[in-house]
Amino acid sequence: MKNENIKSVPLVVIKRLPRYYRYLGELLKQGVTRISSKDLSEKMGVTASQIRQDLNCFGGFGQQGYGYNIEKLYQEIADILGLNRGYRTIIIGAGNLGHALANHSNFEKRGFKLVGIFDSNSDVVGSKINNLIVSHIDDIETFFENEGADIAILALPKSSVKEVADRLIALNIKGLWNFSYTELDVPDNVAVENVHLSDSLMTLSYKLTELNE
Amino acid sequence: MKNENIKSVPLVVIKRLPRYYRYLGELLKQGVTRISSKDLSEKMGVTASQIRQDLNCFGGFGQQGYGYNIEKLYQEIADILGLNRGYRTIIIGAGNLGHALANHSNFEKRGFKLVGIFDSNSDVVGSKINNLIVSHIDDIETFFENEGADIAILALPKSSVKEVADRLIALNIKGLWNFSYTELDVPDNVAVENVHLSDSLMTLSYKLTELNE
Repeated sequence: MKNENIKSVPLVVIKRLPRYYRYLGELLKQGVTRISSKDLSEKMGVTASQIRQDLNCFGGFGQQGYGYNIEKLYQEIADILGLNRGYRTIIIGAGNLGHALANHSNFEKRGFKLVGIFDSNSDVVGSKINNLIVSHIDDIETFFENEGADIAILALPKSSVKEVADRLIALNIKGLWNFSYTELDVPDNVAVENVHLSDSLMTLSYKLTELNE
Repeated sequence: MKNENIKSVPLVVIKRLPRYYRYLGELLKQGVTRISSKDLSEKMGVTASQIRQDLNCFGGFGQQGYGYNIEKLYQEIADILGLNRGYRTIIIGAGNLGHALANHSNFEKRGFKLVGIFDSNSDVVGSKINNLIVSHIDDIETFFENEGADIAILALPKSSVKEVADRLIALNIKGLWNFSYTELDVPDNVAVENVHLSDSLMTLSYKLTELNE
């Protein structure tokens, strides 16, 4: 059920939640149970007032003078982000990037379930990655008939990503995590998140250039 | 030489420049030479007024009624971002992710020069990736004495990244592109850009959850 309180939270705040989630997770691991916005702000390098503003968007988790209950806040953020729902996830593209993502233990920890890996290269099909056997991309329709998936990770070349995305959309995929260096046209009911690695490298290049001039 | 005009451009605008750069590059490839802020805004899905505001930060590239000279704007953005300076780049970690990044052709196109790959695993040391032989991480000091590098891509496990980052900082590395799911403490004269893949996946999870509730 949708939490009506969070309906109008701006995406810019949502984009900061994963970072809060990571920091709070680290604190929990260290056995910390409460933290003030001031201490959290020092750890995260943002202002305490931003933290209070951000977290107030979701109803006050903090108590004046007592700080935040970390465990509770951590769980609430997980709920808002839709973690721990066991979203069934497949990877398209069993190259180096697909391998790296399949072996990324954080994904399972965040509640995503890796249920299939597909590739078009017959040299790779049948091999095993992280306990899953790589299937041929042409078996994807059958896979959706029998099992289905919520999220597809697109770790395949730019040249074939549009065709594959269209096939997945026809199969009612709900979300695409796109590593393919191109932007996709998708219907409004499909969520997309693009990872543009070269944008990040260009931002680094800017910072480095600024520092050295 | 530093361009004093761009001194006070907020980082949020800088972060948008790589996207402009990508779109302008696509247009150039298609043979387009001029574009209005209105047409660019439709392509990029942002408002024309944001485009005008962003690009005005760097001195007016556009001419009222004539639109932007794409080639000139593309080159200016490259200069601002410090692309095409031939930054010498090394990869630390020759696992799947290191492989994927080494084979990522966009980096060389953006003007970064891959000059070395290092790993601590002797099974991998000596193997060849993208015409470079993987060196042992313990040869990194010698490498810096003889050749040096500007940017290190950290594609190694969280458990060893801090130690390696400290070694690189002692060797006067200028920039770190960090894929290691942990934040690094670095001196002010070292540029860092973190790639938190799981943050991006969590953002996708949020969008997908919103759409399906």
